[in-house]
Amino acid sequence: MAVLKLFGSFFSPYGYRVIWALKLKGIPYEYIDEDLRNKSPLLLQYNPIHKQVPVLVHDGKPICESTVILQYIDEIWPQNLLLPADPYDRAVALFWIKFADDKLYRANGEEQQAAVKEWLEMLEVMEEHALIGVKKLFGGDEINMVDIAFSFVAIWLGVLEDILGLEICEPHKFPRVSSWIQNFKSIPVIKDNFPDTDKMSTFLKHGREMMLTSKSN
Amino acid sequence: MAVLKLFGSFFSPYGYRVIWALKLKGIPYEYIDEDLRNKSPLLLQYNPIHKQVPVLVHDGKPICESTVILQYIDEIWPQNLLLPADPYDRAVALFWIKFADDKLYRANGEEQQAAVKEWLEMLEVMEEHALIGVKKLFGGDEINMVDIAFSFVAIWLGVLEDILGLEICEPHKFPRVSSWIQNFKSIPVIKDNFPDTDKMSTFLKHGREMMLTSKSN
Repeated sequence: MAVLKLFGSFFSPYGYRVIWALKLKGIPYEYIDEDLRNKSPLLLQYNPIHKQVPVLVHDGKPICESTVILQYIDEIWPQNLLLPADPYDRAVALFWIKFADDKLYRANGEEQQAAVKEWLEMLEVMEEHALIGVKKLFGGDEINMVDIAFSFVAIWLGVLEDILGLEICEPHKFPRVSSWIQNFKSIPVIKDNFPDTDKMSTFLKHGREMMLTSKSN
Repeated sequence: MAVLKLFGSFFSPYGYRVIWALKLKGIPYEYIDEDLRNKSPLLLQYNPIHKQVPVLVHDGKPICESTVILQYIDEIWPQNLLLPADPYDRAVALFWIKFADDKLYRANGEEQQAAVKEWLEMLEVMEEHALIGVKKLFGGDEINMVDIAFSFVAIWLGVLEDILGLEICEPHKFPRVSSWIQNFKSIPVIKDNFPDTDKMSTFLKHGREMMLTSKSN
């Protein structure tokens, strides 16, 4: 059987994308948790360009960038497809995945006011465009790659609100987003493999690292 | 026959990606050149999120984001495939396409010294990693999607060097990049549909717009 290794970090929302994709497909893998302040020589060897997690190593061959990894996983293990089969639907999904990716990249540790503004703008686009017509999840009743791409919203919003002591995603302003977050978090595979947000909050409150440190991809 | 419309701009390297892909596939289309300082209501309707070119409209349905459009085109018209057929090779191609995309996005109108530094770093990665083992082009002897993603290097480097009055891509420092640029520009479809870089230089020299204005995607 093929050897599959995943380099991730408890702090990386990009890493969780891959964890969830593999769990949803039911693919066993070996997990290596990287300390992002002291990266292993193997990680640097596998991802010399970005030096970041996640890296998936399949039969000794590394794949970097979470969205590239997700597409690879979906092709190699087509059970529970994460991208729609129809080319146009797939293009729409890839558009939103790119949108989420860009937002996640930019949702960086700027000063507080700018970060909150960036989040609000993104939540507005989700509420008014991305989630229009979406039933329970982006893929209908089943999770798909767009849900996974937007998962950082479900992970970080609570952490951010906790740290800042304010409510960013007010349910009456963002009913669709609030409902999507609840639906996403209640999927068994997600719930059972959710990052420890209390640990994240504590970590961030102690100021040891800025949120989204080093923009791991 | 399906109606195909492309909204582009003479100034948009993202738009040229789509033009070239369609020309390489031999797909006829109607081209609408947008004035990015005075965008048409139709463009804003088709791309309400980013309000940018390119937008490809296929049978009335819009597709936005150049890399998403390229993947869609490759699926709908599979002649002259732009992505490798092998899943791992395709993942590697998608990694470099994302790299090029991120660099193009960030090669923005910062102050001159920072912009040159950013370009040099990118050229070094191309020289030392991306082009290792590449024969004539990324896809071997034939153009593929990675060449198209990196095409902004071939378009802009000369314009930038002309404006700044300095040589950024010195051939003895970047022999692989220099050779790739020559090979890329000598492909008939590219040569016959290359943007008017003199017009770009003049436009920029007159300071009417910053390079990469409004980050059109």
